[in-house]
Amino acid sequence: EVSSRMFQLKTRKGSNFISTISDDRGDEPTYCRTPISALVEANASVGHVIGLLWLKKHLPAWATKFIELCIILTADHGPCVSGAHNTIVASRAGKDLVSCICSGLLTIGPRFGGAIDEAAKLWKFGVEKEIAPLELVEMKKREGVNISGIGHRVKNIYNPDKRVQILKEYAANHFPQHKYLDYALAVERITTQKGTNLILNVDGTIAALFLDCLTNCPNVSANEVTEVVEIGLLNGLFVLARTIGLVGHTLDQKRLKQGLYRHPWDDVLYLQEEI
Amino acid sequence: EVSSRMFQLKTRKGSNFISTISDDRGDEPTYCRTPISALVEANASVGHVIGLLWLKKHLPAWATKFIELCIILTADHGPCVSGAHNTIVASRAGKDLVSCICSGLLTIGPRFGGAIDEAAKLWKFGVEKEIAPLELVEMKKREGVNISGIGHRVKNIYNPDKRVQILKEYAANHFPQHKYLDYALAVERITTQKGTNLILNVDGTIAALFLDCLTNCPNVSANEVTEVVEIGLLNGLFVLARTIGLVGHTLDQKRLKQGLYRHPWDDVLYLQEEI
Amino acid sequence: EVSSRMFQLKTRKGSNFISTISDDRGDEPTYCRTPISALVEANASVGHVIGLLWLKKHLPAWATKFIELCIILTADHGPCVSGAHNTIVASRAGKDLVSCICSGLLTIGPRFGGAIDEAAKLWKFGVEKEIAPLELVEMKKREGVNISGIGHRVKNIYNPDKRVQILKEYAANHFPQHKYLDYALAVERITTQKGTNLILNVDGTIAALFLDCLTNCPNVSANEVTEVVEIGLLNGLFVLARTIGLVGHTLDQKRLKQGLYRHPWDDVLYLQEEI
Amino acid sequence: EVSSRMFQLKTRKGSNFISTISDDRGDEPTYCRTPISALVEANASVGHVIGLLWLKKHLPAWATKFIELCIILTADHGPCVSGAHNTIVASRAGKDLVSCICSGLLTIGPRFGGAIDEAAKLWKFGVEKEIAPLELVEMKKREGVNISGIGHRVKNIYNPDKRVQILKEYAANHFPQHKYLDYALAVERITTQKGTNLILNVDGTIAALFLDCLTNCPNVSANEVTEVVEIGLLNGLFVLARTIGLVGHTLDQKRLKQGLYRHPWDDVLYLQEEI
Ligand SMILES: CC(C)(COP(=O)(O)OP(=O)(O)OC[C@H]1O[C@@H](n2cnc3c(N)ncnc32)[C@H](O)[C@@H]1OP(=O)(O)O)[C@@H](O)C(=O)NCCC(=O)NCCS
Ligand SMILES: CC(C)(COP(=O)(O)OP(=O)(O)OC[C@H]1O[C@@H](n2cnc3c(N)ncnc32)[C@H](O)[C@@H]1OP(=O)(O)O)[C@@H](O)C(=O)NCCC(=O)NCCS
Ligand SMILES: CC(C)(COP(=O)(O)OP(=O)(O)OC[C@H]1O[C@@H](n2cnc3c(N)ncnc32)[C@H](O)[C@@H]1OP(=O)(O)O)[C@@H](O)C(=O)NCCC(=O)NCCS
Ligand SMILES: CC(C)(COP(=O)(O)OP(=O)(O)OC[C@H]1O[C@@H](n2cnc3c(N)ncnc32)[C@H](O)[C@@H]1OP(=O)(O)O)[C@@H](O)C(=O)NCCC(=O)NCCS
Repeated sequence: EVSSRMFQLKTRKGSNFISTISDDRGDEPTYCRTPISALVEANASVGHVIGLLWLKKHLPAWATKFIELCIILTADHGPCVSGAHNTIVASRAGKDLVSCICSGLLTIGPRFGGAIDEAAKLWKFGVEKEIAPLELVEMKKREGVNISGIGHRVKNIYNPDKRVQILKEYAANHFPQHKYLDYALAVERITTQKGTNLILNVDGTIAALFLDCLTNCPNVSANEVTEVVEIGLLNGLFVLARTIGLVGHTLDQKRLKQGLYRHPWDDVLYLQEEI
Repeated sequence: EVSSRMFQLKTRKGSNFISTISDDRGDEPTYCRTPISALVEANASVGHVIGLLWLKKHLPAWATKFIELCIILTADHGPCVSGAHNTIVASRAGKDLVSCICSGLLTIGPRFGGAIDEAAKLWKFGVEKEIAPLELVEMKKREGVNISGIGHRVKNIYNPDKRVQILKEYAANHFPQHKYLDYALAVERITTQKGTNLILNVDGTIAALFLDCLTNCPNVSANEVTEVVEIGLLNGLFVLARTIGLVGHTLDQKRLKQGLYRHPWDDVLYLQEEI
Repeated sequence: EVSSRMFQLKTRKGSNFISTISDDRGDEPTYCRTPISALVEANASVGHVIGLLWLKKHLPAWATKFIELCIILTADHGPCVSGAHNTIVASRAGKDLVSCICSGLLTIGPRFGGAIDEAAKLWKFGVEKEIAPLELVEMKKREGVNISGIGHRVKNIYNPDKRVQILKEYAANHFPQHKYLDYALAVERITTQKGTNLILNVDGTIAALFLDCLTNCPNVSANEVTEVVEIGLLNGLFVLARTIGLVGHTLDQKRLKQGLYRHPWDDVLYLQEEI
Repeated sequence: EVSSRMFQLKTRKGSNFISTISDDRGDEPTYCRTPISALVEANASVGHVIGLLWLKKHLPAWATKFIELCIILTADHGPCVSGAHNTIVASRAGKDLVSCICSGLLTIGPRFGGAIDEAAKLWKFGVEKEIAPLELVEMKKREGVNISGIGHRVKNIYNPDKRVQILKEYAANHFPQHKYLDYALAVERITTQKGTNLILNVDGTIAALFLDCLTNCPNVSANEVTEVVEIGLLNGLFVLARTIGLVGHTLDQKRLKQGLYRHPWDDVLYLQEEI
């Protein structure tokens, strides 16, 4: 009914735009009707602001703290991954900070940063359709694709990933419940029988816990969770978090006064056919 | 001497890249040698991570909290400003989240978001060169340009900006000292004699307090503060903060299923000369 | 077999990149083994260079001239469409030319610029699967979607689109054959019975003729045509052509010294729910 | 007086935008009042359209042909330069064509692509201020900066650059006059005494000839030439030309189905200080 009311109003006023998250017309900006100064006075966190602007909700403290944990864990992953690499190359070409950030952000997608989104869709599908974990694993095997959120190059059941442990502990101590995580862990119990490194990785854990987080917020409906996964909110979380790293790499190169990068010729196989 | 050691090493190893902020080669990423899990265990905040990746320092809690305050205050400013507008137009063109964010970010610069950076340079110049506030005001008048960080369309000395008050209170309670803020306030005392709305605005306050923040961190040298202002770290802070809003606007339009935007013809003056 | 040879070579040399379109290692750049100076001496056109770099072929003159026709027809479409609009807003924010162009380009996609690509897929599908034009029209009706490349807001069978006429004439005079155009025209004969404005539009004509163009180039295989449509070459053509317009709009605003744009508040329906 | 008339009209109509290069309101788009179909019928070239949209002029054939020469000469420069490299990395991250192009374009600036712009400013300064070539060379030496447009890594006076020769021949045969080129060649006569490789390079030649081109178009005023150099039209020419190459590299990687690129760890000097 929000949308029917919306379109009535729209027709009446003839506005070309609709905006439902913030307002800058008054004395001070408001985020979902909450004045910024009220937020600051209430000692609201960055995670709380994200909840307001992305989900239009006041999220409970355990949830906003979880969002911040995810930001901290994915803020950077060294200079070699696509995003940081392109940002560094742009910074060394002498470009301004905004251009450097965008050159890097534009590499974020299915292969870089996309595992969180993919994993979320998978855990949601499995839990909602009540697919048994074993069945899910076999389904993916038949499709011939790896399960997003499962597998690590270095870590394994004997040498677990500390970040995953911390996330699991956080959920155990603060989340009202965590059925998506439990599902993902049930999948892990099956895959680790196949290979000891086929553990639930940090992307898969964030994906599962984000679903648990939203599902347990009293004011977020099931439809809203579905919508949030569809429109790619988790991708937004990675984009925001990684922007911290990309700003860092831009500044790092400028401080180091690194010159224009040119990829070395001998690392390229020039393969031109006779035409 | 870091840089001489750096270039020796570079020559010896023949590396094409240098990176000094993070490392992803080990079991888990580290930010300035600090493993992510250690950060999480120490209950580090988003502001702390920013301090590590942008300044390569463990900043004190009062400083990281201040960085987060700035993020909260500038996270969004409604749908009408350039950044949000272009993001919204891209979202309505059916583009993916990353493209929408970048289309908006690319409007950040001298006229949108740039006042913080400009103001920081001005307060730094004034304090370091010991320019009397009156002299600074007159200098800018002679140049015929407005003082960045001064002036508000709605607020004035009788109806002050709550956000500025909160920032000032935060500094009074938590900063060891705040000579840049004091300088900016001295400038305000002069400009408000000219017009009651020529108050120190939120951009000017953030700029001054960021300088005070860095200057008072025991492990940040004067040279580092200068470098940070030159390479545009404050611009990075605005880019990061506003990314929160841009993600919000992208999701908002997608939730509202808004169609392709075409600017109305009758709002454009088509002025083609005979050629 | 190119790719098997490629991977053998790759393995042997351990290169991280493969590139098959150009080479900058010698005295002068070559495009598919052809030195730039040889191209210029042979009076090669911009369309010829596009053929080399995008298709790795020396295309016949009638084909390169056709590519240039498409560029001219889609170079610009006024200041109101998404791409030009975002470029203009960025230019008015005082941003550099590259940022302005990118802010605009990032709106190109399914709803803006995408009809050419969609139409090409449709005509290709119809011709290859030998779907009768009537059947195609009814298929789309059942799916409830408009046929890409069909329909015009102003033009109709009695008041035809001059650009389409010119393209058709060009094909009649210069293309060896044009079965995709004929197919699209057969579809038009059916849709115009439904509505006189449901004519083959300029996007649909370009799409059909691009397929005819490639199909009739003796050195382009059927697999290569399929590949070209799949990887989105037609999208590239629109991106390149429209870059001319976006550069034009950027320069136009800078010449006119237009100030920062802020969308008017009263054109926005602020619709914030109680939370 | 255009601008005074403009603002009168603006005030009267209250438009938020002004646009002087194209119009899409009628039956077909017009570029500077010229209907697209008229352009096609007149067999106008891509260079002619660029003249209309960037300079608002019908340029003579020798000039539009020169613009196309420049596009052909700078369309691509192999996969190793910043722009192509970032485009390739984005393409290998599985991103759509537009994102790949933008990731690459965003590296164009002072160090990559910027020599043309810089050289144009220098030749213009030298000719207008009547600085003797020798004086210009010494001025730059005193400033400690290289002369943009002068110098080549491989070519020298005994082994000249074919592209420069072609451009010079084109100007000799088609330009009414070429005082900027002559000036640049006078500078070259001095620098080549210092080093045989300090020849006028292709960037410097394009820059000089672009000035000669505009200066010799009867309908382009001296003020317009100045404006064009100031607002960065030459940068636009490079952006447009190189977009051809960037589209080519995007398609090349997609055809080759190259996977996600990760820069090799051992090419990075990780240099983290104790903090
Ligand atoms: C992370 C990853 C790349 C590590 O893979 P790896 O250790 O190099 O594993 P390999 O690709 O060599 O595969 C080894 C075996 O495990 C299987 N396997 C690997 N990852 C798997 C997964 N996610 N799901 C199911 N099976 C998997 C492989 O199919 C292979 O089986 P086989 O021996 O029967 O052929 C991989 O697990 C993966 O792609 N995971 C999904 C994507 C993801 O979550 N990425 C984020 C990581 S932080
Ligand atoms: C914020 C701002 C746009 C509001 O301006 P405004 O109230 O519309 O003020 P006007 O432009 O109408 O100017 C009114 C008078 O105040 C003066 N003035 C306005 N802002 C001034 C400033 N920042 N410094 C000095 N004088 C200023 C004007 O010169 C003018 O003087 P005049 O009457 O002698 O000609 C303006 O103060 C400004 O540009 N500030 C600097 C940029 C900035 O900090 N922006 C971020 C704001 S959050
Ligand atoms: C160009 C276009 C927007 C013009 O549409 P319009 O004149 O406003 O037409 P309407 O949307 O009002 O539709 C009128 C009728 O024609 C039908 N129609 C319109 N375009 C149609 C198409 N492309 N294919 C099939 N039927 C179409 C509508 O379904 C409608 O039928 P109905 O009366 O039975 O409901 C539309 O034809 C279209 O979307 N075309 C496809 C996209 C395209 O090629 N765009 C590039 C244009 S240069
Ligand atoms: C193209 C270029 C990088 C080639 O340089 P190079 O052959 O590697 O030359 P070096 O940098 O080794 O310099 C050799 C000497 O020539 C001088 N020199 C090189 N380019 C010069 C120039 N453009 N103007 C003046 N002196 C120059 C150097 O100062 C140096 O002098 P020194 O021996 O007294 O110290 C260089 O000439 C240059 O930067 N040119 C300007 C930028 C430009 O036009 N780039 C586009 C090239 S297509």
